[in-house]
Amino acid sequence: MRGVIMKSARDVRVEDVEEPRIIESTDAVISLTATCICGSDLWPYRGIEPVDNQPMGHEYVGIVKEIGDAVTTVAPGDFVVGSFCLSDGTCEICTAGYPSRCANGGFMSGSQAQKVRVPLADGTLVKTPGMPDPDLIPSLLAASDVLGTGWFGAVAAESGPGKTVAVVGDGAVGLMAILAAKQLGAERIIAMSRHESRQKLAREFGATDIVEERGDAGVAKIKELTNGYGAHSVVEAVGTQESMLQAIHSTRPGGHVGFVGVSHDVEIPGGDLFFSEVHLFGGPAPVRRFLPELIKLIWERKINPGKVFDLTLPLEDAAEGYKAMDERRAIKVLLKP
Amino acid sequence: MRGVIMKSARDVRVEDVEEPRIIESTDAVISLTATCICGSDLWPYRGIEPVDNQPMGHEYVGIVKEIGDAVTTVAPGDFVVGSFCLSDGTCEICTAGYPSRCANGGFMSGSQAQKVRVPLADGTLVKTPGMPDPDLIPSLLAASDVLGTGWFGAVAAESGPGKTVAVVGDGAVGLMAILAAKQLGAERIIAMSRHESRQKLAREFGATDIVEERGDAGVAKIKELTNGYGAHSVVEAVGTQESMLQAIHSTRPGGHVGFVGVSHDVEIPGGDLFFSEVHLFGGPAPVRRFLPELIKLIWERKINPGKVFDLTLPLEDAAEGYKAMDERRAIKVLLKP
Repeated sequence: MRGVIMKSARDVRVEDVEEPRIIESTDAVISLTATCICGSDLWPYRGIEPVDNQPMGHEYVGIVKEIGDAVTTVAPGDFVVGSFCLSDGTCEICTAGYPSRCANGGFMSGSQAQKVRVPLADGTLVKTPGMPDPDLIPSLLAASDVLGTGWFGAVAAESGPGKTVAVVGDGAVGLMAILAAKQLGAERIIAMSRHESRQKLAREFGATDIVEERGDAGVAKIKELTNGYGAHSVVEAVGTQESMLQAIHSTRPGGHVGFVGVSHDVEIPGGDLFFSEVHLFGGPAPVRRFLPELIKLIWERKINPGKVFDLTLPLEDAAEGYKAMDERRAIKVLLKP
Repeated sequence: MRGVIMKSARDVRVEDVEEPRIIESTDAVISLTATCICGSDLWPYRGIEPVDNQPMGHEYVGIVKEIGDAVTTVAPGDFVVGSFCLSDGTCEICTAGYPSRCANGGFMSGSQAQKVRVPLADGTLVKTPGMPDPDLIPSLLAASDVLGTGWFGAVAAESGPGKTVAVVGDGAVGLMAILAAKQLGAERIIAMSRHESRQKLAREFGATDIVEERGDAGVAKIKELTNGYGAHSVVEAVGTQESMLQAIHSTRPGGHVGFVGVSHDVEIPGGDLFFSEVHLFGGPAPVRRFLPELIKLIWERKINPGKVFDLTLPLEDAAEGYKAMDERRAIKVLLKP
């Protein structure tokens, strides 16, 4: 079968790879209906994380082909959405709502392919109410990571009624955080973006205000919009030092920062955090916790996160997809196996 | 009148200073019944923070002598406890429960004296139900900062029923956090301490376990005591890089770190925090929020935080008090004006 391999930075190829098969009794093998390229795939692509012949992809929807003897919640023929994190669903961390840090879990890989093996299938996959209409596929795929991650950012930032929520980062995750804040009932949602096409999508997803300034100027603008106090809730969806400090400083004392950008070379000054007195919480999103709710919202057509995919390519053209995202010509690329 | 001045590092003197008087209509002047030396006073004493002729002290209980025209909640003759942070009690930050970051507030100073001016009296002071019995004075004084700060640490770490709480730091604040965790209903309280006298007090305040190891070895011990998961709640009550990382790494994913040690040269690695996936919250304690509840518990003799004072000296001997705390011969020193 065909699968995407990142040979080294900027060298993405589609190659013949081994067919996945059941190894553990808790595994499932699924045939992928759609997969996609993640913003986090750009870190190794850009040489910021090391990479060497890596099978790529951790977002996926598809049809179960085969299950191990211990799997009970999904069966061959089911259409499933899975989290990018693997989780057993039974350890104390999973049952407390943090499956992305499951004591026995790990991360998915190799889903940019025709088929993929999903370990810990019962704790990782959720089946949809039936076969989805084709127009729902992109939204269900988004739930696998980018929507679930933006949703977690908005939840970690305690977005909700009466709250002003600011979102740092206008990538796919930031845009999904805006959609999530809207669903969670936020009163005002400030998108921090300087790209016209992303501003447009941000407004479509629920942003009420746009701030183009960054860094200290961005912070000053957020303060100006909030009677000098800062936002109640800020989602950090980039992962750099500048964006993290922008998020912390844009939040009022007692407010909440939800950070979901994978941190790269970030050092948070302790004294700064102490006197900012903001709640800080983030990490790999516990997507599996949110999946049943997200699938329901998508199934009932109450949200349309699939709009975040602005380029669809055949799996064979994966390299072009990486290039388009790297050059910011595309927000997020859907691949059809 | 007499007051404590830190001339420079390690040079503490008691001198004749100007009598405080009402300056703003929101001021009160109180005559101090008791005051004390804070662990945070040791930072400038040790030369880690700059200091130059600083009137010292931010913890206080006493009797109101005079009030400004705008003060309505306390009157001359009232016995009052005040927070070490000044707050108006009316801004959005105060009403949300974070008076220690009041938009119009600041920090108390000069309470190691016979009298002190308290700005923003209505939002800062709380009067007791009547004149306290003398044996309650130390406990009421503790509420002013050290108890309120330990309490905040335990609240920020979400201590409560069913939770295992670990406390990093066996200074006065750490000990108070243990007392708070106990009151908040924690199931298990692990004190991280290697000093016998402090271990004894920790057990008296509610610690169920003692861990003597520090750093990575301390983390390993906490994991060992919690089925490999880490504590649900960890209070950081020191303020150094080692103690902060010890706290973060001792907490299970999804758990909560409450940090109340004033951070000194702390840099929190973003990637480490991301993959630890712990809630991190701290800062100057919003003591004023807790004061009514703490005063009630003390008044009803349900808690005895005053035990944390293991040395009482006349105000005139303040220099000896600083020395005793610096050399860790005393946990916390009460000064009698």
